[in-house]
Amino acid sequence: MAIGRETVESLIKIGKPKWKTSISQVAPNQITTRGYPQEDLIEKISFSDMVYLLLKGQIPSKNRARMLQSVLVSFCDHGVTPPSTQVARLMASTGSSMNSCVAGGLLSFGKHHAGALELSMKVLQDALKSLDLDETDSDNLDQLQNAAQMVVDHYYRKGEKIPGFGHRFHQEDPRPPKLIDMAIKYDCFGVHTELALNIEEILFETKGIRMNIDGANAGILSDLGFEWELGTGIFMIGRLPALVAHVNEEKIRETPFRKLFEIEEIYYDGPDVKTLDEFLNND
Amino acid sequence: MAIGRETVESLIKIGKPKWKTSISQVAPNQITTRGYPQEDLIEKISFSDMVYLLLKGQIPSKNRARMLQSVLVSFCDHGVTPPSTQVARLMASTGSSMNSCVAGGLLSFGKHHAGALELSMKVLQDALKSLDLDETDSDNLDQLQNAAQMVVDHYYRKGEKIPGFGHRFHQEDPRPPKLIDMAIKYDCFGVHTELALNIEEILFETKGIRMNIDGANAGILSDLGFEWELGTGIFMIGRLPALVAHVNEEKIRETPFRKLFEIEEIYYDGPDVKTLDEFLNND
Amino acid sequence: MAIGRETVESLIKIGKPKWKTSISQVAPNQITTRGYPQEDLIEKISFSDMVYLLLKGQIPSKNRARMLQSVLVSFCDHGVTPPSTQVARLMASTGSSMNSCVAGGLLSFGKHHAGALELSMKVLQDALKSLDLDETDSDNLDQLQNAAQMVVDHYYRKGEKIPGFGHRFHQEDPRPPKLIDMAIKYDCFGVHTELALNIEEILFETKGIRMNIDGANAGILSDLGFEWELGTGIFMIGRLPALVAHVNEEKIRETPFRKLFEIEEIYYDGPDVKTLDEFLNND
Amino acid sequence: MAIGRETVESLIKIGKPKWKTSISQVAPNQITTRGYPQEDLIEKISFSDMVYLLLKGQIPSKNRARMLQSVLVSFCDHGVTPPSTQVARLMASTGSSMNSCVAGGLLSFGKHHAGALELSMKVLQDALKSLDLDETDSDNLDQLQNAAQMVVDHYYRKGEKIPGFGHRFHQEDPRPPKLIDMAIKYDCFGVHTELALNIEEILFETKGIRMNIDGANAGILSDLGFEWELGTGIFMIGRLPALVAHVNEEKIRETPFRKLFEIEEIYYDGPDVKTLDEFLNND
Repeated sequence: MAIGRETVESLIKIGKPKWKTSISQVAPNQITTRGYPQEDLIEKISFSDMVYLLLKGQIPSKNRARMLQSVLVSFCDHGVTPPSTQVARLMASTGSSMNSCVAGGLLSFGKHHAGALELSMKVLQDALKSLDLDETDSDNLDQLQNAAQMVVDHYYRKGEKIPGFGHRFHQEDPRPPKLIDMAIKYDCFGVHTELALNIEEILFETKGIRMNIDGANAGILSDLGFEWELGTGIFMIGRLPALVAHVNEEKIRETPFRKLFEIEEIYYDGPDVKTLDEFLNND
Repeated sequence: MAIGRETVESLIKIGKPKWKTSISQVAPNQITTRGYPQEDLIEKISFSDMVYLLLKGQIPSKNRARMLQSVLVSFCDHGVTPPSTQVARLMASTGSSMNSCVAGGLLSFGKHHAGALELSMKVLQDALKSLDLDETDSDNLDQLQNAAQMVVDHYYRKGEKIPGFGHRFHQEDPRPPKLIDMAIKYDCFGVHTELALNIEEILFETKGIRMNIDGANAGILSDLGFEWELGTGIFMIGRLPALVAHVNEEKIRETPFRKLFEIEEIYYDGPDVKTLDEFLNND
Repeated sequence: MAIGRETVESLIKIGKPKWKTSISQVAPNQITTRGYPQEDLIEKISFSDMVYLLLKGQIPSKNRARMLQSVLVSFCDHGVTPPSTQVARLMASTGSSMNSCVAGGLLSFGKHHAGALELSMKVLQDALKSLDLDETDSDNLDQLQNAAQMVVDHYYRKGEKIPGFGHRFHQEDPRPPKLIDMAIKYDCFGVHTELALNIEEILFETKGIRMNIDGANAGILSDLGFEWELGTGIFMIGRLPALVAHVNEEKIRETPFRKLFEIEEIYYDGPDVKTLDEFLNND
Repeated sequence: MAIGRETVESLIKIGKPKWKTSISQVAPNQITTRGYPQEDLIEKISFSDMVYLLLKGQIPSKNRARMLQSVLVSFCDHGVTPPSTQVARLMASTGSSMNSCVAGGLLSFGKHHAGALELSMKVLQDALKSLDLDETDSDNLDQLQNAAQMVVDHYYRKGEKIPGFGHRFHQEDPRPPKLIDMAIKYDCFGVHTELALNIEEILFETKGIRMNIDGANAGILSDLGFEWELGTGIFMIGRLPALVAHVNEEKIRETPFRKLFEIEEIYYDGPDVKTLDEFLNND
């Protein structure tokens, strides 16, 4: 049975879809994202709408759009204090490319840095799932207070900090209260944020500890319906412009090969100098 | 001379600023970016305003803000066709973390992929710098046509494609004309975009090739005053939300350890199996 | 109290070691690693000795050196079948730099790929720690058989595969038996490898599943005294030369911008095309 | 024409090899690298032989094997002084995974750091290619001296340092002379290294500058027949074990979230605090 090249090609094409996606459809001269032609999106929606559309599959209401915008802006920058920004700038000073430096910054988001948003979202979402609360019911306060106490007790027993509360620099960080204000103003305040506030109340009374920016955003993003697994992703979207700005500043203003400290500032505590003679006789 | 610990500490602090930045200032309970308190930014500006503020040091006018918004939205997604998206999803299928997968996507922006925006900005900016044009003068058309012809001739002689023109999938990509429309509507259309259109005119007449999305955005971003060195940085900001969405889709919907092809589809053209005997006698 | 610049400088240097290490000491014209002058190491030790010295702080005996060498060689390459190699080559085809491509390969080692070595080491080390076995005692067989059964039962109950056993391509991988032979020959065979063999015996009898290369190396590396936390690190050392070779092969032999599949091979299952009208009226 | 599923499958398999490689062949229960069964390689060759085999496609002679071994060992570590090691440790302190931290280290090899080996190889290889020298001829000295002078003059005119010469810490680095000794001892000394020594002679007489480790290895690796494009790849292979050791040391011995400097040590030189009122009226 002789089969022509064209038949083979078409069989290959029909036989086996290699990749499946529901995000965008690409055909010659036509690109749609979540069903909307991109030329329409370019004209009509904002960048934070686009973030919402990509992650959740629909265009947000105006209030939700404004809320996500505030959240993304709030992640923007914390100067050169975070390790991720230092890593990105240190890389920039070796002459690495913009995308390598920014990738380095993203890779610095470990469990001790930037991971708190995701962990805090998980704490709030898990606590509420176990409650099986009616989110529209305004008589939930007792249940939320109990849940807050359980979260605090749980971490207290483990001797660990609760992700989303306390900050190494700021006693009264001005960002969380502003974010809560925005949530109320834009009608996006829900049970997750309420739970976060209840946890803060206990922590503040007992230890003087307040909610930090991760805690506030964890509540708000959860109330917006984002799964906790997207936490670090959303944080990265918000922080990326700052990483680009810092890498650019390093490249433009600083001399290459940044020396973080003098060689005398390094403390060596390994073995004294020895010869390899032992090695030559070691079998 | 006995010096107390406090003196030493303060000397260390005063003596040597370790890092310098003009982007954000962080003090206890106070964070400003480009001079603005972050709690004000959270309340009042959009996410694309924030991008502009971080990269250029000032808040954009409403028209410029809308223009940058359209540019960022236009970069959003091209489905699973680009290597960067494939890399990010392939990594996701091995169980790598969200930030590793996204970093992998960014590292895939090499000179053959996503590099075109930056290169196209450089072509336009270099061509105009050599002209020393008065940007406000509307009688520049002749000069721009000459410059366009010189760019085309230069690449023609090298036998290379001009970055920003032509697309492997789209003959008539709907995005570039829409972006040009927006530039006119928002009064952001300037000489760089004009030059890009002049180049397109020549290419279309001689070879049927049109401006692609990188060419349109290269003109517009240059007219907005962004240096070409920021091109890949801005593209990454626009594309990141899609990378997050794709990684998430892969993790949620697909089975781990994606097999891109069957083992029989690999073509091995190395040496046949041989023994190591030659090695044992090779000295 | 006037203090001169020199005093300040020396105080800074003395006052605060910024970084501490026991690995290498660097002074002008003198570099020692783990106490040995590097010029001596360059002359006298092999590269796998160097790996051992860096990770464990001492030069290995000849037998241990030969054993680690076999382990590192065994990780070398598995063609273009692993996602990490595919990622590195896909990046190479976009024109990314050698170090970006290799970094991309390393970032692809997630829990479903290459993570098995570390997990397998943990399983063996945890099981033996709980036994509190005398490693020099040859009458441990009963205890090891019990421990093996407990490991198998544990994973059986969870319905998960035991890391280090079974392979998607190979029913009888030729590498694990060879590694076990080497361990015996070089007197490096210990209780961890013995435990791994006991697990294999149970799995083979009940399910026809054999030890894979991660299982064999997990036993051997544990017997060599490496903590499980170093597993992925050692695997990366062994695999890196292959990633470099593959990236180089891609750059030298293939055309840029590798197309993994035709656009028709992508299956889109998102929403149909729709207009943005709903959006304009959605508040 | 009805075609069964099996026919389709086989057509797909035959019709289109998706990936081509000459490095390793993988079939069920059989893995060969450059033609050699991996179980034989595991038993018989050293790790640096494996590096040579992967990169150059053949097993080296004993002398070449010993030479490459010395080169790889020489790259091992330079303490915590290089930015790449600092980046890897800084990432480790945020809780990032071993492979992320090591990838970060690799991404820090920019043109100002670690790039010198590749550049130095290129300088030597380009200079010799232009000579069209008979490598076996011992009467080449005059030509090499001329070539050395041309290289020096070229960089002198550009006002740039010659890659491979001079070191920020070491006036008389003990590693380069040892490497040259090894090259002579193992009969691997060739015209590239000779050229590097000629360049050093001129630089030392005129400026007191000596060859550094990159210069020595550039000569030797070129004489071993490695193309300059592999320079950074080979350096990464040699340096990776140290990055693993440093990341491990950081994780084991240091407290998380390393603070490189006090907040007071940051110098902010951006705009003073201002309000957003200007913004609200800016259109």
